[in-house]
Amino acid sequence: MKRWACGLSYDGTGFCGWQIQPAGAAPKPALQNVVEAALEKIAGHPVATRCAGRTDAGVHALQQVIQFDTGAERPPNAWVRGVNTWLPPGVAVRWAVPVDSGFDARFGATARTYWYALLDTPVCPPLWRERVGWTHRRLDPARISEAAACLLGNHDFSAFRASECQAASPVRTIESIEVVRDGAFVLMAVTANAFLHHMVRNLVGALVYVGDGRRPVEWMAQVLASRNRSFAAPTFAASGLYLASVRYDPQWQLPIAVRAPRVCELV
Amino acid sequence: MKRWACGLSYDGTGFCGWQIQPAGAAPKPALQNVVEAALEKIAGHPVATRCAGRTDAGVHALQQVIQFDTGAERPPNAWVRGVNTWLPPGVAVRWAVPVDSGFDARFGATARTYWYALLDTPVCPPLWRERVGWTHRRLDPARISEAAACLLGNHDFSAFRASECQAASPVRTIESIEVVRDGAFVLMAVTANAFLHHMVRNLVGALVYVGDGRRPVEWMAQVLASRNRSFAAPTFAASGLYLASVRYDPQWQLPIAVRAPRVCELV
Repeated sequence: MKRWACGLSYDGTGFCGWQIQPAGAAPKPALQNVVEAALEKIAGHPVATRCAGRTDAGVHALQQVIQFDTGAERPPNAWVRGVNTWLPPGVAVRWAVPVDSGFDARFGATARTYWYALLDTPVCPPLWRERVGWTHRRLDPARISEAAACLLGNHDFSAFRASECQAASPVRTIESIEVVRDGAFVLMAVTANAFLHHMVRNLVGALVYVGDGRRPVEWMAQVLASRNRSFAAPTFAASGLYLASVRYDPQWQLPIAVRAPRVCELV
Repeated sequence: MKRWACGLSYDGTGFCGWQIQPAGAAPKPALQNVVEAALEKIAGHPVATRCAGRTDAGVHALQQVIQFDTGAERPPNAWVRGVNTWLPPGVAVRWAVPVDSGFDARFGATARTYWYALLDTPVCPPLWRERVGWTHRRLDPARISEAAACLLGNHDFSAFRASECQAASPVRTIESIEVVRDGAFVLMAVTANAFLHHMVRNLVGALVYVGDGRRPVEWMAQVLASRNRSFAAPTFAASGLYLASVRYDPQWQLPIAVRAPRVCELV
């Protein structure tokens, strides 16, 4: 058996999220289902995948990383172009590399970076309706940046955790939060060791309240300290969230690009 | 009766183009149909529109300009937010301003600017599949720019004209062609007094042949001089084409932004 690591991109709009759902539970297919079905066409046997970040319904991926094991001997391009001919529109394999059996796409990931794309135009541009979170209120990225500073480091993020979150601990470590304006967009890049359920979308909801002036900058630290979800702001839309990058030990030599958050890098 | 000018944006993916089609002729709705139906909900009477550029199926608009006449007295916002509540996803009114009856959205337009967005990645990124023209061959924007220079000015563009084009003359005046790389994208902005049917997509098809090295730079001038469509390259995909801007006499004071071709300006 050989283990492969693959990089995937997808438009989350047409899917119920990464994870396989019980039959009949979701009106849209799960990404894991369609990806495993396509891999099986090339492998010729049942394939089980594991991914770096189980994205929710409507959430996109620029660089999702998965692993699978196969006894089939295929060149790397078979796992890219070959698999892509069997995938539905909206999801594609970008690269495939053979890895040692010690590689683990989920537990070997030392950091994940999510981008959140916001548009603050008076009317939501139709071409971006399923690709951004939108607000008609003008955002000040400097205020967002200032408010986000208190989130850096090791914290109990209970105030930004969905009630259905199954993680054993609410403590996570945020390594960096970058906020940039690019044309009509405000992009946020959040890097952490791992994330709680809905954590980025809940952080964005609160940061938007500060960015548009509805709350003072100091409010963010108060919400964090409260550890109470009901003190924060509503969860922002799934459509603006992108799994942008995953970090692994350099020994694995994965072709994962680390990019600055820019609209032209949303590819 | 009062005349209004409106700016529209749309995602052309779900439409058979701007123009009303004979019943049963197209499986997707026409933009003109859905826009007139929404305007009629606010006006309370039948509305006829005229537009600056009749975009084809799958072609997008960042700034389409339309006009219509109405006896209904409504504030400008009724023609923006009010109409938007009646429009399907994928099309939105961005602004509405009252104009004198001398304004003509089609014949008063002195120039149109189309953008064409290309991606030259090994695999077509799923998030952009309906928003770009894609090629797996690496493009050199400097070669494209150099080849495009011969197109500037007044020419017979028969070599880049669809066989079904109904224009009386194949002569058009190209004012400028800008080619820029922005991340993995190559964006082209073409401004002309007017365009023949499929003209931009046919120009892009030929420019891509030069940009990826399949044809020399000088080939472009030879194709233009041939005035023969069969000498050029295939028509490039509708999905990469955006009506970006329309120019009118400044007397009309329309809020049309002229923007540099950048991915963050595709809003």
